[in-house]
Amino acid sequence: MKIKLLLISNSIAYGKGYLDHCEKDILVTLGKINTILFIPYALQDHTKYAETARERFAKMGIKLTSIHTAKNPKDAVKKADSIFVGGGNTFRLLSELQKRGLLPLIKKRVLSGTPYLAASAGVNVACPTIKTTNDMPIVEPKSFQALDLVPFQINAHYFDPDPKSKHMGETRQQRIKEFHEENTTPVVGLREGTWLLVDNNNVTLKGEGSAKLFQKGKEPREIKTGETLDL
Amino acid sequence: MKIKLLLISNSIAYGKGYLDHCEKDILVTLGKINTILFIPYALQDHTKYAETARERFAKMGIKLTSIHTAKNPKDAVKKADSIFVGGGNTFRLLSELQKRGLLPLIKKRVLSGTPYLAASAGVNVACPTIKTTNDMPIVEPKSFQALDLVPFQINAHYFDPDPKSKHMGETRQQRIKEFHEENTTPVVGLREGTWLLVDNNNVTLKGEGSAKLFQKGKEPREIKTGETLDL
Repeated sequence: MKIKLLLISNSIAYGKGYLDHCEKDILVTLGKINTILFIPYALQDHTKYAETARERFAKMGIKLTSIHTAKNPKDAVKKADSIFVGGGNTFRLLSELQKRGLLPLIKKRVLSGTPYLAASAGVNVACPTIKTTNDMPIVEPKSFQALDLVPFQINAHYFDPDPKSKHMGETRQQRIKEFHEENTTPVVGLREGTWLLVDNNNVTLKGEGSAKLFQKGKEPREIKTGETLDL
Repeated sequence: MKIKLLLISNSIAYGKGYLDHCEKDILVTLGKINTILFIPYALQDHTKYAETARERFAKMGIKLTSIHTAKNPKDAVKKADSIFVGGGNTFRLLSELQKRGLLPLIKKRVLSGTPYLAASAGVNVACPTIKTTNDMPIVEPKSFQALDLVPFQINAHYFDPDPKSKHMGETRQQRIKEFHEENTTPVVGLREGTWLLVDNNNVTLKGEGSAKLFQKGKEPREIKTGETLDL
């Protein structure tokens, strides 16, 4: 079994263009594959979103087709050489995948070697559940269960508490602590500008900056770029 | 039918003590009532939370008992003179209320005149659904349906986008816009330091600062303190 995942915290790094910061690892993950199936369900406007993604992948020499234009979305997944799940709202994305019965099909393909690339909401959906998303629950999915492609949760767009803030809402770190009051799965706080490259059982942090690993009952610890996660 | 609600964005205003900023309106809402039932389910440590709340209400001359110490929580709701739902995680709170079958009972009491006071997560649960919470979905509730005590959604701890921010995650305003891509209910962005006082059909903004009203297909507009909401 050969699993290839590229799990990107955010598709646009500050001051850069769409997917610019992680282009190299997109190409590494795809290898000789030059077609990709795009899943735009996390945003409302599928056509516009797919056009943005299509143009960006075309610059890398990759032909992108969007699942929303497929006559049969299930067939599109079955035939895909690789899959890219775009960011947006995680609840909407999961709900749309559930409605179309696509979760088991995507999982089966990825577990048999089809590369899975994802940013933000698409990263949340790669986890066991969507319980560590930052998104507003604007849509009620059938369940919080997701693709379960990795044995940990990811908190995308992770950021540290601002000691100067006067805001009284929970910090991201407090929210993850609350997650561990109710759950035991480790959580990777994936800061913007970073991503995880999963090659079989090797999970490596890439990009600029570090990530923060939260484990129930332990002090959180920093993971440096280039480091392999030992969970 | 006489409905009395006090819906507080945040229980601790920056630089102030627990419930200090809204003490006067707590007393106005309770009138001659001097006992209150506390619902601590949004936090994990019910005992500690109830103790904090008990001490604070004692200072106002109100005797607080916490539902987690009741032999029969349903009976406790049926007998309550007033109810205070504390803040914390909205998903956990809703889930605990659902498990104990308390939602219809609380709703019935409030619609028949029992004052309902709430902060943060407790405010979200007063809305038709919890679809405008900021909280992390650490627990999966049976459904997102909530008490439906008001004909609008509230986004507690609302704050405006920071034009200097380098963070690429969605702003609060973008999240509420996404809510309106999928739903039609108006949303009141309730900034910290403010609250809504509901007296029958009169909904008045109170506290320091303003709120922001979001309606599908319209430009958001500011609501000033003292203003009555016209929805």
